[in-house]
Amino acid sequence: MMKSNPASDHVYLNDGFKCSTISIHTNLSEQNGGSNNSVGTQGSKEFILTEDGKKVKPSRSTVECTKSWLQECSRRTFNRKTLHKKLPILGWLPRYSSQDAVGDLVAGITVGLTVIPQALAYAGIAGLPVAYGLYASFLGCFVYIFLGSCKDVPMGPSAIVALLTFQVAQGSWQKSVLLCLLSGIVELLMGLFGLGFLIDFVSGPVSSGFTSAVSLIILTSQIQSVLGITAKGNTFVEIWTQVFHNIEHTRAGDTVLGLTCIVVLLLMRSLSSCRIGPDDEEQCSSLQRVVNKVLWIVGTARNAILVVVCCLMGYLLHSEEHGAPFRVVGDIPPGLPSVQWPPTSLSANETSHGAAENFVEMVHSMGSGLIVIPLISLMENIAICKAFANGKSVDASQELIAIGTANIFNSFVQGFPGTGALSRGAVNNASGVRTPLSNIYSGGLVMIALLFLTPYFYFIPRPTLAAIIIAAVVFMIEVKVVKPMWRSKKSDLVPGVGTFVACLVLPLEWGILIGVGLNVIFILYHAARPKLSTELLTTQSGMDYMMITPDRCLIFPSVDYVRNLVNKQSMRQNVPVVIDASHVYGADFTTATVIDSLISDFNQRGQLLFFYNLKPSICAIFEQVSAAQFVVYYQEQQLDDLLKERNYTQKRSETA
Amino acid sequence: MMKSNPASDHVYLNDGFKCSTISIHTNLSEQNGGSNNSVGTQGSKEFILTEDGKKVKPSRSTVECTKSWLQECSRRTFNRKTLHKKLPILGWLPRYSSQDAVGDLVAGITVGLTVIPQALAYAGIAGLPVAYGLYASFLGCFVYIFLGSCKDVPMGPSAIVALLTFQVAQGSWQKSVLLCLLSGIVELLMGLFGLGFLIDFVSGPVSSGFTSAVSLIILTSQIQSVLGITAKGNTFVEIWTQVFHNIEHTRAGDTVLGLTCIVVLLLMRSLSSCRIGPDDEEQCSSLQRVVNKVLWIVGTARNAILVVVCCLMGYLLHSEEHGAPFRVVGDIPPGLPSVQWPPTSLSANETSHGAAENFVEMVHSMGSGLIVIPLISLMENIAICKAFANGKSVDASQELIAIGTANIFNSFVQGFPGTGALSRGAVNNASGVRTPLSNIYSGGLVMIALLFLTPYFYFIPRPTLAAIIIAAVVFMIEVKVVKPMWRSKKSDLVPGVGTFVACLVLPLEWGILIGVGLNVIFILYHAARPKLSTELLTTQSGMDYMMITPDRCLIFPSVDYVRNLVNKQSMRQNVPVVIDASHVYGADFTTATVIDSLISDFNQRGQLLFFYNLKPSICAIFEQVSAAQFVVYYQEQQLDDLLKERNYTQKRSETA
Repeated sequence: MMKSNPASDHVYLNDGFKCSTISIHTNLSEQNGGSNNSVGTQGSKEFILTEDGKKVKPSRSTVECTKSWLQECSRRTFNRKTLHKKLPILGWLPRYSSQDAVGDLVAGITVGLTVIPQALAYAGIAGLPVAYGLYASFLGCFVYIFLGSCKDVPMGPSAIVALLTFQVAQGSWQKSVLLCLLSGIVELLMGLFGLGFLIDFVSGPVSSGFTSAVSLIILTSQIQSVLGITAKGNTFVEIWTQVFHNIEHTRAGDTVLGLTCIVVLLLMRSLSSCRIGPDDEEQCSSLQRVVNKVLWIVGTARNAILVVVCCLMGYLLHSEEHGAPFRVVGDIPPGLPSVQWPPTSLSANETSHGAAENFVEMVHSMGSGLIVIPLISLMENIAICKAFANGKSVDASQELIAIGTANIFNSFVQGFPGTGALSRGAVNNASGVRTPLSNIYSGGLVMIALLFLTPYFYFIPRPTLAAIIIAAVVFMIEVKVVKPMWRSKKSDLVPGVGTFVACLVLPLEWGILIGVGLNVIFILYHAARPKLSTELLTTQSGMDYMMITPDRCLIFPSVDYVRNLVNKQSMRQNVPVVIDASHVYGADFTTATVIDSLISDFNQRGQLLFFYNLKPSICAIFEQVSAAQFVVYYQEQQLDDLLKERNYTQKRSETA
Repeated sequence: MMKSNPASDHVYLNDGFKCSTISIHTNLSEQNGGSNNSVGTQGSKEFILTEDGKKVKPSRSTVECTKSWLQECSRRTFNRKTLHKKLPILGWLPRYSSQDAVGDLVAGITVGLTVIPQALAYAGIAGLPVAYGLYASFLGCFVYIFLGSCKDVPMGPSAIVALLTFQVAQGSWQKSVLLCLLSGIVELLMGLFGLGFLIDFVSGPVSSGFTSAVSLIILTSQIQSVLGITAKGNTFVEIWTQVFHNIEHTRAGDTVLGLTCIVVLLLMRSLSSCRIGPDDEEQCSSLQRVVNKVLWIVGTARNAILVVVCCLMGYLLHSEEHGAPFRVVGDIPPGLPSVQWPPTSLSANETSHGAAENFVEMVHSMGSGLIVIPLISLMENIAICKAFANGKSVDASQELIAIGTANIFNSFVQGFPGTGALSRGAVNNASGVRTPLSNIYSGGLVMIALLFLTPYFYFIPRPTLAAIIIAAVVFMIEVKVVKPMWRSKKSDLVPGVGTFVACLVLPLEWGILIGVGLNVIFILYHAARPKLSTELLTTQSGMDYMMITPDRCLIFPSVDYVRNLVNKQSMRQNVPVVIDASHVYGADFTTATVIDSLISDFNQRGQLLFFYNLKPSICAIFEQVSAAQFVVYYQEQQLDDLLKERNYTQKRSETA
C-alpha cells in the first residue's frame, strides 16, 4: 500500500495513471556505454500506448459480463445486422446481378460434375452402398444457400468425414443416418452457443498431421478395391496386414483398370493448368482461347469424364455369362430417396452382433464421434473459407449453424454426415463462383442423376471409383509442409508428427486430441516459463541498479518461477532492483500474492525494489493484496529521486 | 522474402539484427498532437533489450535438448553441486553448530508434542485404528533428515492426505499401507523425472478452494465423533444427511466433552500470541519473560496438554460397570510396529464386499488416487516451504523425492500416506527450527510413545481427538481470501469457488481437476485473444499511417483472430499499416502461415504493410514461410524512407 509514503504516492499517481494512457520515457542508453547517444533527434520521445482506447476491445469482468448479457441478448436478437449475419442470403440476394448468375451457373455445374462421382466414391469410404453418397449431396446444398456465409463452400460428402462416419457407424446405414442427424444437432448447438472459436485451437501442424494421416488411411482403404480383394480393418496397420494377407486373390481386371485410371486421372489433372499460346489472355487467338478452355474443362471435369468412359467400357465388356472383367457398382435403387425420420432403433438382423439396439445404445456406440465429427467438419469447412476469404473475416459459428442445419435436413433423406469438401471448394473457386447460390445447380444435377441416371450407374467399375479417391487424397498428404516447418520452427514438428503417427495407430479422434493436447502443453509452457533479461545499469546520477525485464504476462504458473529467479539474481548484487513491467500485460490473484512475498523478501534483505512502467490495471490488482509498500514509477528520471528519498547511497565495496 | 528490394534489406539488417541487441527508437509523440513534446530531455532515448544476454536462460530447440541431454546426464550425476542438491544433508551437517542443535531440540520436542495427538486424530480421519497414526509418524521423519531440503517440514500424517487416503482405501489398513508404498513410489518417480513443476499449475484460488472444501469435509466427518453418533458417507452432503438422520442418538457425555474441548482449544490457541509486559523483549523483567514463555508453550502444546488432561479424566471417570461417560480410544497394541512387506493381497474376510482381492484389483480400486495423493502431498509440503523460504528458491522435485522415500519407508512399518503437515510446519518454524534434524526429536518422541505410553492412551476420549481436528481445520477454511480476491481480480473467483463447490459435491480428485481445468481455460483464453490497440499516427514528413499493437505473443489460437481484426481495421482507412511487434515475444509455424496470408490480403488491396520492431528470432520464423515480401524496420525515422521507396503519396480524398 502506498499510504505510508506521500512521495511515492505522487510517483504512482503521475499522468499515466488517471487517464487511460501510459507515457513511457525511454532514455536508458546513456548507461549503456553511451555509444548509441543520439542527442537532438527530432520530436519528442514518447511512446503512447492506448490501453482502453476506443478501438481496443475492453476486457470486462465476469460480473459485468453476466449483467449485461441478458440486455445484449434482447437487444441483439432482432437487430438488422444480426439478422444479416445469421441469414447471410439477405446480404447478397438483393444485390444479385446477371454476372453473379453466370458465374454461379458455371461453377455449380462444374462442381455438380465433380460431386456425382465423388459422392459414389465417398459412400464407399463410409462403408455404405453408393446410392447413399448421392442422397447426402443435394438437400444440404439447398439449405446452405440460405445459411452459408462463404461462397466457395460446396456442401456435401467429404472424404475425411466419410472415414470418420465409417469408424463410428461401421458401415450401418441406419447408424450413419442417425449420426448425420445427431452431429447436425451438435453442430447447430455449437454454432448457436458461439463455440466456433474452438477451431482456433487446432494449429496448422496438427491440422496438417491429421489431414495427412486421414489421407493415407483413405488411400489404404481403397487399395483393396483397386486390387479387387477384400481387406477389413479400422487402422492403417490392420488394413495393410489384411491386404498382404489376401494379395494372392488379386483380380487382374480390377488391378489393370484401377492403375490405369489413377495414371489417367493424374495426367488429366495436370491438363487444367496447361495452356497454349502467349501467357496474356488478350493476346491469344480465338482458337488458342477455345483450346485453353477445353483443356481446363477436361482437367476439372476429369472425374465425370472418366466415370462416363469406364461406365461405357463396363457396359460393352459386360457379358451375361461371366459378368464384367472387373467388379462394378451394381444395382442402385432409382429415384429420389423417401423423406422419413432417421432410424432410431435397430432390429436384431440389422446389427452386426445380432442383438437389437435401441436409441440409447445406438447413441452410446457413437461415443466421442458425436463431438469429433462436428469439429472435423468445421475444420475442413473453415479451411475452404480461409483459403478464399481474401482478407474478409470468417464466421466459424455461422458456418457451424449452416452445416449443422444442412446435416439435419440431409438425415431426413438418408444422407450421411457431410461438410464443405476441400477439393470441391477449390473447383468451385476456380470455376468463378460468386455466391452460395451455385449450390442450387450442383444439388440439382445430383437430383437429375438420382431421377434419371441410376440405371446407367450399374456398370461403373469399382476400381474407377477407388482410383478417383486415390488420385484426390494423394495430394492431401502434406509432405511439402515439413520442410518450411523444420526451417522456421522445429518444435512445431512435435504436434504435427505426433498427430500424424497417433492418427495412424490409434482411432482418429484420439489422434487429433493428442495433437491438440501436445499443442496446449506448449501454450502452458509458454505461460509458465517467461524469459527474464537482466541488466546492470546506472542512473543519471551514477548509481548502479539492476533492471529485470520479464517478456510476457505474469500469471499463476510462472510467478513462483519468476520470484525465484528475481531473488536469485538480486542476491548476487546488492544494488536496487527495478522490475520493468512494460511487457507484462496481465496478472492474476496468485501473482498479487507472490509479488507480495517478493516485496517481503526484499524488505527482509534491506534491498530496494521498484516497479517500472506497470500498467495501472495491474497496479490495482497488486494493491488489493500487497500489505507491503510497493513503488511504481513511469519515467526513467524518477528513479534517482526515489533512491534519494530512501537515503540510498551506493556502497561500492559491497558490490565488489 | 527480402531479396527483391535491396533498400528494405538494409532496413532489415540494421544494427539490431547482427548483435543480439535490438535498439528501439521511440519518437512517435509528435504525431499525437504534440502535447507531450519534450524536446531537450536529458540523455539518449534508446531502450536496450538484451535478447540473448548472458543472464537470460536460452531457450533451446527440442533437437538440441535431446542431443545434449545424455551428455549432461553423465556430466551431472557425480557433480558436487548435484550431490548437495540431491542429498541436502551434505549442505548443512558439516556446518552444524550448537545454536542449531538447541533450536532443533526445542522445535523437535514441540512438534513431537503436537504430532502425537494429531497422529491419533488423523488416523481417525483415514478411518483407521489410532495406532496407525503413530506408525506413520516416526520412520519418515528420519528419512526426511537426509533428503529433505526444507528445514520447516515435519514429515508425518496430515489431515488432507488422511482424508484422501480414506476416500481411496475406505478404511482398510491393508489398502492404506499399500497406498502409502505406491504413492511413495509415484512421488519418488515424479521427483526423479523433475515433475515438481506440475505444482505450478495449481493456482492460489484453486489451492484455497481445495483446502477450504477439504477442511469443511474433515470438520463434517468429525461432527459424528463429537456427538457420539455414527454417520458414514463420502461426500459432504451424504455425511450431513446421516448426521441429521442419527441426531436423536446423540450421547450427552461425548457432546459436552467435545464442545468443551473445542472451546478450550480455541482459547488456548490465542494464548500463544498473548504477552504481558512491554513489547520489547529486552525491557521485560525476568518474571515477565518466564510468563510469556509459559503462555507460548501452553498455547503451542495445547493439543498434548488437552489430551493428557482428558486422558486422566477418562481414567478417573471410568468405571468397570458402565465404562466411561464418553467413548474412548480403547486398546492400542503396545510397542513398535513390526517391519514387514506392505500387504499385496486381501483375503475374502478382509474386504468389505467379501471377495478376495489380488494385487492388480487392489491397485485398480485405488485409481486416480495414485496420482492425486502425490500431487496433493506435494502441494501441502511446498506450501510450508514457500511460507518460510525467505526468498530462497524451493526445489519441488527434491521435496517429491524426500516425501516419496519417506512414504516408501513408512509403508514397511504400516504407516499410511503422509507429507509435511502445514499446521505442524508453522509450529516448527515458530519454535525456532534450524535444520531438518529437528525431525529426529519428534520421531523419537513418537517412538517413545509407542514403546511406553500406549497403555495410557486407552482412556483418551474420542471427542477430544475430534475436537483437536476441528479446532485445527476450522482455521484452514480460507474465507478471508475471498475479499482481496474479489477486490483485485474477480475472475479468479471462478476457479476458486468452482474448486470449492466441486470438491464438496464430487470426489476430491475431480474437484481439484475441475479447478485446474478452469484455470487452464483462462490461460488458453489469454493466449487466444490478445488485445490490439490501434492508433492513427502521422510520420515526420506528415503522412498518415495506422499503428496496430498486439500486446502479447502471436501463436496458433490467436493468429486468425488477429488477422481478422487487422484486416477489419485496415479496410476502414486506406493508409499504410504498421504492426508494432515490440510486445510480441513468440510465434510459431501457424503464425508464419497466417502472416503470409495477411501480407497477401494487403497486397491484393494494394495497401502497404510494415512490421516495426519485430524480434530477429521471429523474423527468422516468418521468412521461411512467407513467399511474399515482408518489411521490418527498427527505427521510427525509417518509415518515411520506406514510404518514399514505395512511391506512396497520400490521397487525402480517399481517406475522407
